[in-house]
Amino acid sequence: MAWLKSLIQLTVTKSSSIRARKTNPFPLPSLALIAQFSTAPTNETPRVTPYSGLGPAKPGEKPRVVVLGSGWAGCRLMKGLDTSIYDVVCVSPRNHMVFTPLLASTCVGTLEFRSVAEPIGRIQPAISREPGSYFFLSKCVGIDTDKHVVECETVTDGAESLDPWKFNISYDKLVIALGAEASTFGINGVTEHAIFLREVYHAQEIRRKLLLNLMLSDIPGVSEAEKSRLLHCVVVGGGPTGVEFSGELSDFITRDVRQRYSHVKNYIHVTLIEANEILSSFDDRLRHYATKQLTKSGVRLVRGVVKDVKAQKLILDDGTEVPYGLLVWSTGVGPSPFIKSLDLPKATGGRIGVDEWLRVPSVEDVFSIGDCSGFLESTGRPTLPALAQVAERQGKYLANLLNRIGKAGGGPADRAKDIEFGEQFVYKHLGSMATIGRYKALVDLRQSKEAKGLSLAGFPSWFIWRSAYLTRVISWRNRFYVAINWATTFVFGRDISRI
Amino acid sequence: MAWLKSLIQLTVTKSSSIRARKTNPFPLPSLALIAQFSTAPTNETPRVTPYSGLGPAKPGEKPRVVVLGSGWAGCRLMKGLDTSIYDVVCVSPRNHMVFTPLLASTCVGTLEFRSVAEPIGRIQPAISREPGSYFFLSKCVGIDTDKHVVECETVTDGAESLDPWKFNISYDKLVIALGAEASTFGINGVTEHAIFLREVYHAQEIRRKLLLNLMLSDIPGVSEAEKSRLLHCVVVGGGPTGVEFSGELSDFITRDVRQRYSHVKNYIHVTLIEANEILSSFDDRLRHYATKQLTKSGVRLVRGVVKDVKAQKLILDDGTEVPYGLLVWSTGVGPSPFIKSLDLPKATGGRIGVDEWLRVPSVEDVFSIGDCSGFLESTGRPTLPALAQVAERQGKYLANLLNRIGKAGGGPADRAKDIEFGEQFVYKHLGSMATIGRYKALVDLRQSKEAKGLSLAGFPSWFIWRSAYLTRVISWRNRFYVAINWATTFVFGRDISRI
Repeated sequence: MAWLKSLIQLTVTKSSSIRARKTNPFPLPSLALIAQFSTAPTNETPRVTPYSGLGPAKPGEKPRVVVLGSGWAGCRLMKGLDTSIYDVVCVSPRNHMVFTPLLASTCVGTLEFRSVAEPIGRIQPAISREPGSYFFLSKCVGIDTDKHVVECETVTDGAESLDPWKFNISYDKLVIALGAEASTFGINGVTEHAIFLREVYHAQEIRRKLLLNLMLSDIPGVSEAEKSRLLHCVVVGGGPTGVEFSGELSDFITRDVRQRYSHVKNYIHVTLIEANEILSSFDDRLRHYATKQLTKSGVRLVRGVVKDVKAQKLILDDGTEVPYGLLVWSTGVGPSPFIKSLDLPKATGGRIGVDEWLRVPSVEDVFSIGDCSGFLESTGRPTLPALAQVAERQGKYLANLLNRIGKAGGGPADRAKDIEFGEQFVYKHLGSMATIGRYKALVDLRQSKEAKGLSLAGFPSWFIWRSAYLTRVISWRNRFYVAINWATTFVFGRDISRI
Repeated sequence: MAWLKSLIQLTVTKSSSIRARKTNPFPLPSLALIAQFSTAPTNETPRVTPYSGLGPAKPGEKPRVVVLGSGWAGCRLMKGLDTSIYDVVCVSPRNHMVFTPLLASTCVGTLEFRSVAEPIGRIQPAISREPGSYFFLSKCVGIDTDKHVVECETVTDGAESLDPWKFNISYDKLVIALGAEASTFGINGVTEHAIFLREVYHAQEIRRKLLLNLMLSDIPGVSEAEKSRLLHCVVVGGGPTGVEFSGELSDFITRDVRQRYSHVKNYIHVTLIEANEILSSFDDRLRHYATKQLTKSGVRLVRGVVKDVKAQKLILDDGTEVPYGLLVWSTGVGPSPFIKSLDLPKATGGRIGVDEWLRVPSVEDVFSIGDCSGFLESTGRPTLPALAQVAERQGKYLANLLNRIGKAGGGPADRAKDIEFGEQFVYKHLGSMATIGRYKALVDLRQSKEAKGLSLAGFPSWFIWRSAYLTRVISWRNRFYVAINWATTFVFGRDISRI
């Protein structure tokens, strides 16, 4: 540390000698210098030229693939696109992909929010670097397939003083990967009072509400019934998301609430309401196991159909009233109003209809992948489930297809007509996994409910679940953070700061 | 891995055999079971008994110390209180302490938000465990020093359907540690348009706005002037917070924006506006060094006085208009309206006046520490600066004093009158530190501006700055995360997901 010592000696100041100076020896620049900033746009020079945008790619420029959406399908596609052939433009209201299978873990702090969010620039670096590739924080509001143009509108997320502005993007190839929306089945009050579990901000809202309710229930004067209501967490929907969230909640209660909210620990309960069976896509034996384990962890499994949702209670179809403090809704997904409004051929359930090559057959250069698309009836194929692995596989397939088309010279608009598309997309199910809390999980490696195959439950499954997802996390940064989060949750417990 | 193999073999399922069963072998409970939840409070049983609360400690119970606030002063006090003598009740609208010296680093993602937030239950575990100790997510709205009672109101943070409710807490000893508020000097528009940098949610807002502006400025059709405005980050106030934030911002621009927002990298600029001199509490030589380094990193240092703040521009007193996209305000602090409204003796600047033992002399059993308090004129002592180290030292001193009083039997209300208070509080300044970006910092170990002593700048200071704060972070969990965050920022860069 000799270098440090000598540096310190060098810098010892005799301030008293400096103090004598009256004038400031190093004045800041005067106001004159900042006159350069006075470039506030006046009324004559508009801030934004409305309906400008990216015009068609010129001869000699790379053809442009426009990707709508930044979920599993769109991101896997962008990752696979050959950016020496194409410019990539992504339009999405969020600048990151959510690693959805781990989202439930973030609601109670097992994982941090940022550990499951992957910026698009990290998935496809060309977006940040190439002069012709862009990410636009916007939503698509219209598609003109004749002119090969999408109309977009900026999303400013409530930031005051910024009116959304519109612009157009010409595409050579368009990929619609807009995903789906949580279904409410038209039940009153769901959108207003329940929280979905599809985006990072949903998980943040759940975490804040849970911690708020834990603290409110401790305030003097709160009645016993109100304490029970505040701390009653109700999950509607017994699919993997609902079950995983219930499992995480019960882990949080067992491990953290008992220690850190000891005054109210006996009031907190989790109820999972499902109209049919929980985890219906899994093996019967695994479902039995999950039911037993969840019940053992204190999760109340209830069969029921929700009829109405009020601010502090929900009503089942037999009239039973269930007061709640936190309501999480995860009953499946359906197409968004925008997808429904598109004048394109549709598949079962209102999804965009695609052929065996995932293209929209009636128009040129338009493809659709992920939860917003489905095979047309004419293909004779079944609609694929709304799963991350379907979306990811489609994204990968389409990236390869577009790369092949591009190499064959079919990249520019209207130039792919005579190109052989090659192999069709075939989906092979790799199996399902779900964690149920207490270091237990289910792994079902059968290709369908009817097939034979490996299915297992318990700690080994949990170990496989964690390992599998850790390797699937896209970037090394997030892989590292997921591992670190798991380790610190094990050692220190979950963080309960309400920030 | 033999155990794993055997477990997997054990659990291989022949699903086809199970498939034959027609009935569900493990039905969920019927609706009858959930009738127990139908305990929705009716109009006859109120949810909350208004103005109930914690009554005076009964004979045989531990005396109760009520702490208002959860900043440096209050938290250091709670940490030091002997919970075998006292019950501790903390009232604060946030359930964590913010490690303020590192808050500026979270705005651009050098550190994560949770790494600088310490839950109060981790600082004083008795709050979570002891039956008579509590944390209440509430604000204090009144103090009745005669009755030894504080009036509180819950803070529900915009959560709909929850009206704030009021309750009272009797105290044996009361510690007012409510901190201070950012000063706006009565300038129009500051509260509406500028962001302060005092709480975690401020840092979150800054990060979201910065990333939003980076993305908006990339949208087609945005004029050159509007791009420059959106990406003009203005910091008002050249104290340590303003300077550290400017340094972090310029690091973010140099390291991350150039790589990840290459389309707009030439439009982003940082301007630091200060009416007098930056870092006025530091050694002249260090200030000179900071000025040079900041300018080198591209921060424009400007001397000026802000007269008015509009939505997208601020106006200086000579009429210059400065358009901005992000405005951060850190010009010092003053007492909050609640502190001003209290009918207690006041010190200079409207702070609560205390004597040499940090008690409010005119009333029994009331103490005040941290930024909300100051020595009474009668003590002949100067007002101490609003610094973390002052607050922390006062918290530590008062914890020891209260423990001594408690051991001498003076814990209960009105029983400390005849107890010898012992040593007075004496503040000894340990020096100041500030980082200025680019692995550079200032360390000034002189006890006052006039004293001789060690002062140094550059990389060694930066190393000392990081080491010093790393050891000051309260919990091992956060110490670990701060180190990990620094390491991953170095290796992977900062995270730009806008979540």
